[in-house]
Amino acid sequence: MASRLITDALKQRIRRPSLFPKLTTAEELINSGFFKDGMRMGWNGMIARRYPYQVGKDIQKEINSNRTLFADKHLSEFPLDLVSGYYTLEKKGNVIEKLDVVIVEATAITEEGNIIPGASVGATPEIVQSAANLVVEVNTFLPNFEGLHDITLSKFAPYKFPNLIQRVDDRVGTPYIPCDSDKIVAIIESTRPDRTSDSEQQDDCSRAIASNILEFLEHEVTMGRLPKQLLPLQSGVGNIANAIIGGLADGPFSDVEVWTEVIQDTFLDFWEHHKLAFASATSVAFSPVGFKRFYEMWDELRDRLVLRSQSVSNSPEIIRRLGVIAMNTPVELDIYAHANSTHVCGSRMLNGIGGSNDFLRNAKLSIMHTPSSRPTKKDPTGISCIVPMCSHIDSTEHDLDVVVTECGLADCRGKAPVERARLIINNCVHPDYQPILRDYFDMAEKKCLAMGSAHQPQMLDKVFKMHLNVMGEENTMRIKNWD
Amino acid sequence: MASRLITDALKQRIRRPSLFPKLTTAEELINSGFFKDGMRMGWNGMIARRYPYQVGKDIQKEINSNRTLFADKHLSEFPLDLVSGYYTLEKKGNVIEKLDVVIVEATAITEEGNIIPGASVGATPEIVQSAANLVVEVNTFLPNFEGLHDITLSKFAPYKFPNLIQRVDDRVGTPYIPCDSDKIVAIIESTRPDRTSDSEQQDDCSRAIASNILEFLEHEVTMGRLPKQLLPLQSGVGNIANAIIGGLADGPFSDVEVWTEVIQDTFLDFWEHHKLAFASATSVAFSPVGFKRFYEMWDELRDRLVLRSQSVSNSPEIIRRLGVIAMNTPVELDIYAHANSTHVCGSRMLNGIGGSNDFLRNAKLSIMHTPSSRPTKKDPTGISCIVPMCSHIDSTEHDLDVVVTECGLADCRGKAPVERARLIINNCVHPDYQPILRDYFDMAEKKCLAMGSAHQPQMLDKVFKMHLNVMGEENTMRIKNWD
Repeated sequence: MASRLITDALKQRIRRPSLFPKLTTAEELINSGFFKDGMRMGWNGMIARRYPYQVGKDIQKEINSNRTLFADKHLSEFPLDLVSGYYTLEKKGNVIEKLDVVIVEATAITEEGNIIPGASVGATPEIVQSAANLVVEVNTFLPNFEGLHDITLSKFAPYKFPNLIQRVDDRVGTPYIPCDSDKIVAIIESTRPDRTSDSEQQDDCSRAIASNILEFLEHEVTMGRLPKQLLPLQSGVGNIANAIIGGLADGPFSDVEVWTEVIQDTFLDFWEHHKLAFASATSVAFSPVGFKRFYEMWDELRDRLVLRSQSVSNSPEIIRRLGVIAMNTPVELDIYAHANSTHVCGSRMLNGIGGSNDFLRNAKLSIMHTPSSRPTKKDPTGISCIVPMCSHIDSTEHDLDVVVTECGLADCRGKAPVERARLIINNCVHPDYQPILRDYFDMAEKKCLAMGSAHQPQMLDKVFKMHLNVMGEENTMRIKNWD
Repeated sequence: MASRLITDALKQRIRRPSLFPKLTTAEELINSGFFKDGMRMGWNGMIARRYPYQVGKDIQKEINSNRTLFADKHLSEFPLDLVSGYYTLEKKGNVIEKLDVVIVEATAITEEGNIIPGASVGATPEIVQSAANLVVEVNTFLPNFEGLHDITLSKFAPYKFPNLIQRVDDRVGTPYIPCDSDKIVAIIESTRPDRTSDSEQQDDCSRAIASNILEFLEHEVTMGRLPKQLLPLQSGVGNIANAIIGGLADGPFSDVEVWTEVIQDTFLDFWEHHKLAFASATSVAFSPVGFKRFYEMWDELRDRLVLRSQSVSNSPEIIRRLGVIAMNTPVELDIYAHANSTHVCGSRMLNGIGGSNDFLRNAKLSIMHTPSSRPTKKDPTGISCIVPMCSHIDSTEHDLDVVVTECGLADCRGKAPVERARLIINNCVHPDYQPILRDYFDMAEKKCLAMGSAHQPQMLDKVFKMHLNVMGEENTMRIKNWD
């Protein structure tokens, strides 16, 4: 590969001069014949055969037609499985270099050749750890993110140690991803911003959900089960999450801490209103406007934010130790508090489970929030987000504590399944669907009691009737009866 | 309460003389008027309204008729939820004394009034921690178990620390359950043995399953993904678990370690054959014959065994750190590797989830083993243990790595759902059901591909047809067609 003129901007970012000759362009690298058929490639968030989590309509289409084989895994486990060789099962020996070539984004390279990531850490540390060869994309459009990260690598059992993080702002690693600079085969400059979309707008429904949650949290403080600054919050992505964080930015709680995966625009208000003391995440994903605000607030925020690998941000160990309050949106919930986070009508994959079950399974308070209904083409409330049985299950009744919609909240802690069902139907289900689900539950309970099988009453011959109806001509879950 | 004559046997066990006047009998205690209506009582494994896990036909019947309200929770989480006040939601303030009276079994009481448990620890530490008043049952039939336990209490977030266990034999707590002796209101002597049943016998099926698993573990050692002494094993209860441990006792692996919940009879052979280096569990549950052998081996075993609280034995933090190999039997599995551990035909509760998902969710290798079929009254292979969709889901496709039956093994690591389905049908399903499930999968795949929803092909109108058939007149899952 031809060595290229090194700009001043790049010199400030690549602090190891012996790497200058590796500078090239994407086109030159591709034409050099470096990439060979059958190579195992890795980059942040996605490796060959697509693991884990994905967003985007094109990849979703490929996955749902099985042209791309996708295996969905908890965010916290994917990096461990990668270094354990579970995605390269045919390779013998516990070899470290499981990926032939890895493309990694950096905002700087240190004197030692170590890598300073950008706005997202994700599985990059483990992907770099598993690489035989590295192509580093140094982004000079972005500021140098140095100092914002706390990086630890994943070790194999039986050589693992306790992670010593005890507070959201603890640092236990290095500010860079350790890297053997001899493995860097090419460096490519990028001058483009992260491609992000505008922030999802809050609407009346998401604001009502947020208000129900804030009221519940205040109740928990009053009852003495939560301290007045709450416990560290995890919040998913989307308009409900935005409304919750927006509500907290204007809300009654101060010195709040966040232990989450992705930081979005409303967090900027949360900081600006001096309500958010510290946030830990694996990435910041602001809108273009949000990124601008973020860079303006940089000096203040760098002591109030840390980015970690997803194996740490989603670690069951830390989530349970910190007593995180987890809040996520499912595709659908059922009357017994199981949640579907991934598959529409049981078969069509959306984005993947991501970190939702890492959090819901280990949080001190596991909250699922959803609008009570969604529109279809033919019916403005054609989908009830609460159904008799989820058509796919990613988090179970044993994981969830609280269910919330714009209609109300069901506190399921300590409740038996039949109590949960009544509570959820009464408090959370859309009025259009209350009689339908009440009918289902009453019929199922009666039938199952007669058989002595009524712990979690279901009628397996009718359980998906609402789903089948919305998939059919009528395009609504509003069925006329259960016959 | 009248003070009673203290026997020499009791004097050796109750080493705090100021407690002697508390000695009474169960009858006297009941007649004294101490127990009042509406009191919250706790004892190991079961508190008011029945949490968590339960075994026994009578309690099962009560639960399935909803005369007893039962809420099923992961073993690791129940003690945390208890100390967090989730089972006493109406009590204000983060009060420690959540239970009015607790009955706790001991094999001794120390000079300081602390409690030495017996063969089972379970949630006793947290239950004692939550008690306003304690009734201690001191068992003088059993030997003093002192020295066999490692007890830690559960703290509330944000006051939690890392658990520093890094090896199966690490001790990080005390040999007793800390106890304020002023809370002890009564002591009752028991002279009866633990009521246990005979060990479940291995049969050809369970031995074939065990052999498939041992072969797989040898393969993993050969491939360099497991060290030659393996990683710590968790093994459920029942005849398959017995066959696996029996197989290991005669097998190729030495210096094996165990990190599990319950130690059963076959572990005695495992130790005696010098293959088992160390075992950690929350209880020993031998048959009457097994307990006899255990007490004979006592001097040798006390350096090779430790009993911990269930919040530690089932801790996601430790399970993941140690890289445990988890092996459990479900009620049923589906072709996409979801598992039902609790509910027959979706509604009838068996024993509860116990610790199965604590392990499967966090293990380095998550293995589910089951016979491929079970008999019904009308058909010797009337139940296929592998179905199109589980009628209740406790562990998800994102948790399981390997499925095993007597027919063979399916290594699902890194596989997309459609690949998993083919592998499981070909390798694990009973020959009687292979054509039936192949038909289902082919039809579902075709139908879902046509809709662009084929990531996890299902036909919601037919998915429980096998269940409905076995529940009906024909009493078999062997259906004639999918129409």
